Amino acid sequence: MSYLKSNFLLKNKTSEKLYFDYASNMPIFDYHCHLSEYQIYENKQFENIFQIWLAGDHYKWRLMRNYGINEEYITGSKSDKEKFITYCSVLGKAFGNPLYHWSQVELETYFGCDLEINEANAEKIWDICNAYISSHVVTPQSLIESSNVKIIFTTNEIFDDLEIFEKIQQKGYKFKVFPAFRADKIMFIEAEKYLSFIEKLGGVSSFESLLNRVEERLIEFKKVGCVASDTALQGVFPVSEYEEAKAVFEKRIKGEEITEEEAKIFKGYFTYFLMSLYAKHNIKSELHIGAMRNNNTVMLNKLGLDTGFDSIAEDNGIYNLSRLMDRLNSEGKLPAMIIFNLNPKMNSEIMTLIGCFQDDSHRGKIQYGPAWWFLDNKEGMEKHLKDLTATGHIGAFVGMLTDSRSLLSYPRHHYFRRILCNYLGEMVENGEITSDLEFIGKVIQDISYNNSIEYFGF
Amino acid sequence: MSYLKSNFLLKNKTSEKLYFDYASNMPIFDYHCHLSEYQIYENKQFENIFQIWLAGDHYKWRLMRNYGINEEYITGSKSDKEKFITYCSVLGKAFGNPLYHWSQVELETYFGCDLEINEANAEKIWDICNAYISSHVVTPQSLIESSNVKIIFTTNEIFDDLEIFEKIQQKGYKFKVFPAFRADKIMFIEAEKYLSFIEKLGGVSSFESLLNRVEERLIEFKKVGCVASDTALQGVFPVSEYEEAKAVFEKRIKGEEITEEEAKIFKGYFTYFLMSLYAKHNIKSELHIGAMRNNNTVMLNKLGLDTGFDSIAEDNGIYNLSRLMDRLNSEGKLPAMIIFNLNPKMNSEIMTLIGCFQDDSHRGKIQYGPAWWFLDNKEGMEKHLKDLTATGHIGAFVGMLTDSRSLLSYPRHHYFRRILCNYLGEMVENGEITSDLEFIGKVIQDISYNNSIEYFGF
Amino acid sequence: MSYLKSNFLLKNKTSEKLYFDYASNMPIFDYHCHLSEYQIYENKQFENIFQIWLAGDHYKWRLMRNYGINEEYITGSKSDKEKFITYCSVLGKAFGNPLYHWSQVELETYFGCDLEINEANAEKIWDICNAYISSHVVTPQSLIESSNVKIIFTTNEIFDDLEIFEKIQQKGYKFKVFPAFRADKIMFIEAEKYLSFIEKLGGVSSFESLLNRVEERLIEFKKVGCVASDTALQGVFPVSEYEEAKAVFEKRIKGEEITEEEAKIFKGYFTYFLMSLYAKHNIKSELHIGAMRNNNTVMLNKLGLDTGFDSIAEDNGIYNLSRLMDRLNSEGKLPAMIIFNLNPKMNSEIMTLIGCFQDDSHRGKIQYGPAWWFLDNKEGMEKHLKDLTATGHIGAFVGMLTDSRSLLSYPRHHYFRRILCNYLGEMVENGEITSDLEFIGKVIQDISYNNSIEYFGF
Repeated sequence: MSYLKSNFLLKNKTSEKLYFDYASNMPIFDYHCHLSEYQIYENKQFENIFQIWLAGDHYKWRLMRNYGINEEYITGSKSDKEKFITYCSVLGKAFGNPLYHWSQVELETYFGCDLEINEANAEKIWDICNAYISSHVVTPQSLIESSNVKIIFTTNEIFDDLEIFEKIQQKGYKFKVFPAFRADKIMFIEAEKYLSFIEKLGGVSSFESLLNRVEERLIEFKKVGCVASDTALQGVFPVSEYEEAKAVFEKRIKGEEITEEEAKIFKGYFTYFLMSLYAKHNIKSELHIGAMRNNNTVMLNKLGLDTGFDSIAEDNGIYNLSRLMDRLNSEGKLPAMIIFNLNPKMNSEIMTLIGCFQDDSHRGKIQYGPAWWFLDNKEGMEKHLKDLTATGHIGAFVGMLTDSRSLLSYPRHHYFRRILCNYLGEMVENGEITSDLEFIGKVIQDISYNNSIEYFGF
Repeated sequence: MSYLKSNFLLKNKTSEKLYFDYASNMPIFDYHCHLSEYQIYENKQFENIFQIWLAGDHYKWRLMRNYGINEEYITGSKSDKEKFITYCSVLGKAFGNPLYHWSQVELETYFGCDLEINEANAEKIWDICNAYISSHVVTPQSLIESSNVKIIFTTNEIFDDLEIFEKIQQKGYKFKVFPAFRADKIMFIEAEKYLSFIEKLGGVSSFESLLNRVEERLIEFKKVGCVASDTALQGVFPVSEYEEAKAVFEKRIKGEEITEEEAKIFKGYFTYFLMSLYAKHNIKSELHIGAMRNNNTVMLNKLGLDTGFDSIAEDNGIYNLSRLMDRLNSEGKLPAMIIFNLNPKMNSEIMTLIGCFQDDSHRGKIQYGPAWWFLDNKEGMEKHLKDLTATGHIGAFVGMLTDSRSLLSYPRHHYFRRILCNYLGEMVENGEITSDLEFIGKVIQDISYNNSIEYFGF
Repeated sequence: MSYLKSNFLLKNKTSEKLYFDYASNMPIFDYHCHLSEYQIYENKQFENIFQIWLAGDHYKWRLMRNYGINEEYITGSKSDKEKFITYCSVLGKAFGNPLYHWSQVELETYFGCDLEINEANAEKIWDICNAYISSHVVTPQSLIESSNVKIIFTTNEIFDDLEIFEKIQQKGYKFKVFPAFRADKIMFIEAEKYLSFIEKLGGVSSFESLLNRVEERLIEFKKVGCVASDTALQGVFPVSEYEEAKAVFEKRIKGEEITEEEAKIFKGYFTYFLMSLYAKHNIKSELHIGAMRNNNTVMLNKLGLDTGFDSIAEDNGIYNLSRLMDRLNSEGKLPAMIIFNLNPKMNSEIMTLIGCFQDDSHRGKIQYGPAWWFLDNKEGMEKHLKDLTATGHIGAFVGMLTDSRSLLSYPRHHYFRRILCNYLGEMVENGEITSDLEFIGKVIQDISYNNSIEYFGF
């Protein structure tokens, strides 16, 4: 029996009541994740717990590296079982790390395994979970449906094939899958492979045709149900002018070298252009800021992107973000935005900036996105709620998402809901808010599911 | 009956004892606010709850905008009652927002209304409060005196008429009102209306006469009892030299364009000049840093300044602040300062900098001002106390103020005192400080009132 | 009887059990401090409590200044007793300040005095402690040995005499003392006395000979047992090239003026060089970042360095730190590092950056150093643990140090251990981690002592 009890994270009776009466049964709308639409479509039975749990999860890899584990046991040549056992051994002592909770919750939720994860139990857990997998249907569909998920937004590059989404529709799943539109690869003009991305996009011979092509693709995305976009910004740059950005782009497609400064000029305009486009097409704009990526060149060359070598940036251009939003707003082109911030020191800066650009087009037009990536943990969520409520309105919040590459991540929605219910339950017990639990419960249900449904227009 | 109980925010018996035995009956010294001295002088009976509660409060407006309310119901053409009911409806769900507490406390304190504020009760609350107003004396005087306020500092521009303060003295109120001197409008040299402000100041034909005129006005302020100044800095700039600032000023008064860089040069010197002047005249310098103002141009044009479209700045020139203070100190011109910081990430930077410039001229010559504006809430105050005590001395703290445009804000002093008493009471119960409550009580009384009286020299 | 009880800082039975069963008896390895090796060698009996407690402690001086005490009572001409009594008087009300706890704990631990420190008791405490000193052996040796300290690293300039460490070895103490290598004085090229430091180093006629001389000295340090280095960086600058740094150095030793920019160029390369050297010689690199030093020129001139006039810096070059670490790592020259960060807003930035450069050469090759200097307090330690565990692995942590100039600081190790045990104990009681206390206890013992022994290779 593990340490997980039914009242996990719920420190008093009111919190428990709020969670079990109002939050626990609400469906899930996962409005940003990194699942593969092909994996969902193909819907193959998993073969073992390693495949589904460790094969692609850079959070887990990173934890092992922090404990000094040899890379062979992480992404290297060791067997699936050796890697699994190593992970369990490392995890057992990782008190306070979010994986300590998530991993335990995942094993209980999806494999009925309640052994505490640690070195001593690792072998048994390996056997139990694999026995479970070999005797049950364990597929993307089964995992998503049993998690009560209704809608999923995958993240798709602008040039991705969209036919797959129509094919998924025809499979008769109890949930829907839509792409979120992402033009980052077209934005990062300094990237080595940039020209190959432009080629993949097709039909681009000039800056004008680039912008047109972006809009055409967005319209095609909309046809398969897309209502949201993702943009990752490494810093926010000043909005530059069309002609300036055009000059940089033309230099680049001729194969000439561009400077760091020129890249910023291009991005400054292109970000502005994308946001305008999203406003025009009523596409919600999910903006991710605050990351410093690919710090370790050796490992980038060895393992590629998104393998656990990113960190939190120091400077993030909040003034520029203000100027970008103001310009868009002045021109009537400010889209509904969800701003995900990776640096906790900026919470208050961004929360208060957001409050300057609200209007009645949405309940919470500009959203302060939930605690994300490195902040996606108990402390981060609690701080997010405190900072959100201190200067914003909790009742407008669109709530949690997984941002995950893993099909086992849906319990994070419940992890968040428990923290939310505990946050409000403690305020009730401390005499700091109303004790009308039904009234509070409605707000919890809105944050858990209803607000996101309303916000994205379903 | 609302959720407010007598032990509101006081989590144990020691905290209650500290609050009721030592804090609750101390008078109030509000050493920085934005009340109108004319309103205090005219002392008119209020007509309805909207007028006194919502008409000018951009905190409340902002909360409504964050919930997606149409501006017509906030600052627009809807009736007072419609706006009031909309606000109550929005507030009811704003768990965690400081207004949720403040609004409830204000209704109970000043109108004896203990209905929970929400949509269902809104109409009844409207009636109860208005009935109260029509059957009681509800004037600036009544509100201030019933709040046990002894001294108020209003904020006054350098060119404001001062006669009104003498007239207020003659009214026989049980409290005193003094202006705090503010030269911001003379400092913000890039402002469109700058020349009109210079004209208003009068007698300025050169840089030298500007500086002389500033000192003359300060002396006139002192004659009506002024002992404090306010300065809002959007970033702290390097101290520049007299001749440099002079050149910029002369360019500006000729009507020539000045660059952003030139504006900073002017402000760099002018800030230094003001601080020197305050030291010379023993004027306490209340310095407000960390804001990024007027983010939304559309709304600035529509509603003007201070209507809820400011936010927290990212970069704030702490190194420059160090250099400014060091230069002033080296020249024997460092005034007593209260530094109000809007960005919580800078708390430790500023607290530790402050500790470098203390001397025995005051108990706490350089003060770390209380949690301010966006931080003026439970979390912000608790963090302020933790950060203050971690590297400073709580016993020297001059305590709370309202910084408010509203006559109903005095309960915030008690809100702060409850948090202070709870902070200390919890330490007693946790065995982390002495259990000599009388000894602690003395410190609480000092922070509540005595320290500010001593600091400002009354 | 003071407020200190045996369960100080331990809020529940599990925390108590963890502390007393696993932490309290572990020895101490103090891997960074500012004790004088000569004082340890000479091992003289102390004469009074002032000498040992207040004479050199700028933390205490600073607290007095924050309360408005005249410098004569701090570092000036007043008698030892007057200064002592003033300090006790100020401390009595300094609720929340770490000195409030440390001072009380020190009196109880080393002098058996359990009177609460305050104005009323000051005279009695003076007498009791001095009576204790005059009737007991109170020497560096007695204080260190009775504190169960096994290894101490002092901080030594590159040109310090090393013979003293061999002499200490011969004294037969129950603890060992090794120097940590520090080349800061050779790095701060803009310092007025720079040329005199270069001269002290000896044998330097060119940039090449400088670098050689540094390595020679490091090898001599190693001969007396040195395994660690200290580097204080005021900001991290871009890595510059050998030829650039050489040009600046040659200018400087010719006695020419160098610009601030040139100083950064020199430091950029020199930092890179030092780190490479530490990697080559397997010297752990203790890196101290985030300080802004010598803010108050008047007091610098009066009292010198390290007298309580430093603060926390705003900008700290995290991007540059990433580039430095990446370059070193790419070249196979990244040493094991302990990064001490003074600005709490950067915790997450640094923690996540650290996670990008781990490997299996050490369990926790790149360490996030414990809460340091201004953060060395209850809040700071709790935040450190939360931030460390949120994105790192607690089990790899090398734990606490004193960073102290005082021989009475060892109880800070126990202060930290109590906080650590309480942190874990609360998680157990909240059902957030395993309840296998023996398993947790092993992790606590590792953090208390074993990890640092393993990390530094003893």
